[in-house]
Amino acid sequence: MQTTDTITRSEPSRRRALNFSAGPGALPEAVLEEVREELPVYKNIGTSVLEISHRSPTYTEIAESARTRFRNLLGLGDEWHILFLQGGASLQFYQVPLNFLPDNGSADYLITGSWSKKALKEAKMVGAANVAATSEEDEFTYIPKRGEWKLGTDASYLHFTSNNTIYGTQFHETPNVDVPLVCDASSDFMSRPIDVARYGLIYAGAQKNIGPAGVTVVLVKDDFLGKRRGSLPTLLDYGTHTAKLFHTPPVFAVYMVEKVLKWLEGLGGIGAIEDLNNRKARLLYERIDRTGFYTGTAKADSRSKMNVTFRLPNETLDAAFIKAAADRGLIALKGYRTVGGIRASIYNACPLEAVEALVELMDDFEKENG
Amino acid sequence: MQTTDTITRSEPSRRRALNFSAGPGALPEAVLEEVREELPVYKNIGTSVLEISHRSPTYTEIAESARTRFRNLLGLGDEWHILFLQGGASLQFYQVPLNFLPDNGSADYLITGSWSKKALKEAKMVGAANVAATSEEDEFTYIPKRGEWKLGTDASYLHFTSNNTIYGTQFHETPNVDVPLVCDASSDFMSRPIDVARYGLIYAGAQKNIGPAGVTVVLVKDDFLGKRRGSLPTLLDYGTHTAKLFHTPPVFAVYMVEKVLKWLEGLGGIGAIEDLNNRKARLLYERIDRTGFYTGTAKADSRSKMNVTFRLPNETLDAAFIKAAADRGLIALKGYRTVGGIRASIYNACPLEAVEALVELMDDFEKENG
Repeated sequence: MQTTDTITRSEPSRRRALNFSAGPGALPEAVLEEVREELPVYKNIGTSVLEISHRSPTYTEIAESARTRFRNLLGLGDEWHILFLQGGASLQFYQVPLNFLPDNGSADYLITGSWSKKALKEAKMVGAANVAATSEEDEFTYIPKRGEWKLGTDASYLHFTSNNTIYGTQFHETPNVDVPLVCDASSDFMSRPIDVARYGLIYAGAQKNIGPAGVTVVLVKDDFLGKRRGSLPTLLDYGTHTAKLFHTPPVFAVYMVEKVLKWLEGLGGIGAIEDLNNRKARLLYERIDRTGFYTGTAKADSRSKMNVTFRLPNETLDAAFIKAAADRGLIALKGYRTVGGIRASIYNACPLEAVEALVELMDDFEKENG
Repeated sequence: MQTTDTITRSEPSRRRALNFSAGPGALPEAVLEEVREELPVYKNIGTSVLEISHRSPTYTEIAESARTRFRNLLGLGDEWHILFLQGGASLQFYQVPLNFLPDNGSADYLITGSWSKKALKEAKMVGAANVAATSEEDEFTYIPKRGEWKLGTDASYLHFTSNNTIYGTQFHETPNVDVPLVCDASSDFMSRPIDVARYGLIYAGAQKNIGPAGVTVVLVKDDFLGKRRGSLPTLLDYGTHTAKLFHTPPVFAVYMVEKVLKWLEGLGGIGAIEDLNNRKARLLYERIDRTGFYTGTAKADSRSKMNVTFRLPNETLDAAFIKAAADRGLIALKGYRTVGGIRASIYNACPLEAVEALVELMDDFEKENG
């Protein structure tokens, strides 16, 4: 989605940039150092984790540890299955309705950006998908209010995208409906608590908050799973993966997710990361709103705490700002190609210091160009 | 499929074992050292490759380099698309017929083991899939001869599994039929030349010969691609991926594939690795056949050069052999769970020295127990 700008400073090459990439996003440096230490040999097994069977005790232990950490961090009971799949959110867009949109039923979709539109498109290939609300008429700058949703009468689930990376909007409340929620949580998963009792299924590509690209974490509740259709293609049937480890998982990506979750536990868990994410977002939005030089592109009540989108007075200044940022080692700040402007993605692994450095740049840049 | 046994010797923990894992398999140590060197910062970009946008110049360059290396190594013309997908061979089992098995047509399948059976099962969910030949009645110990195949009259393609990891068999000749070949080459891809003119599509999970688990390489020819069905789910339509980079690829796995291909070029390319693989296989099969102590489980004319399967006089000796191997740092030699015995997977990255060490062990073990 966004180019990672090369640092133009003449620093030692191992110097880490302050990385605001929208995804794949920054990972905790401590995690990367651990991975480095475990190459080319992991512990006492004689090989790296990249070279082990997915049936080996080593991988089994890693995957189980990752699952236990998810359970502990999110408070998931035994009724939740935790799957490590492939194909990203994009494959889930099809897999969800294929499993859960019945032949004579329907599903409700909230359309808050490009990703939910794509999810809707795949659902329509399977069956009756109803647009309960959309903010497309206003370029997805807000999350439609609950009172305006037009819910179907026989929906099997309500699908929504909890955070919209491109437009910088986010749901601040769990949708309050009578049917199970299905959520594409790719870009804010594990950044704040989830009221899991309201959900049937939650999916997230790992590459924003919890690991590298290449693994999709799916949480699915047992009673919801039981409602899926029969005779599905083996790999697209969630039941295949809840029953057993069916085929080779993306071993290395799962290994990294396990490490990121351990890091998150070390920070204090979901409550602690939510506090930190709130501080980071507040700092940045307050700086945007302090003067008229920067303009936030999302409506105030829908602003994302993960992707902060804003504009300078004109596109020339947008470009100059991105260049000035790169000169200070702040990278990947360019807005999505169809939207323009600036986007600062401040996922879990983005430290407070990075946001402080960005705010300092914004102050300095405004002084020089305001 | 197979457990990676912990080394029981009291060696320094960074000591590399001789790894005969059937997959995910061993990777070249030089590649792993390069990966280590590029953590936590890749070149001058300020981040690791695990943290960059898939639209960044860095990823684009890596993926293009991998494609160029495939083209050069296999002699692929412009009519070939090279895709880096997810979901493994198991998703291809469904995706191939979904795209290429027409509503009123059929496809031929050669059944030479568990994986081709799984491919057939998914094809049957889509349409008319004809078993052209099978060796199941003899526990998949051989590749059915060309003269015995019963080909359909309107098949759109012939699907086969070029190497059977579990049973240790391999096609030694390209199937000679009038329709385009579709090949699951997961376990012998890039181990020998491919007569690509005969193929429409070739797919391979990377985790045997060309990289870590998490990426599936698909080669698809333009005229074959043009015959696919319309109105397919977006992510399962090969055309989605040949048209553009549709969604986030498994960045790190592609990065590693690129490195493994560079390593392969450094060895001298496909011809050189084929020679080496022939030497390794010959050494091992000659040792098996030298006395009556070890018994190869595949018929001689169908023996695999990738997975060498054999048995000792009884299961107690099988187990003792695996233990004796681990004591010397030779690991992951246990046969597939449903087959038993010994399986030595000697993929590209398995050095000749590892096979020599295995042969030496076989000599010593026979002397002590024969």
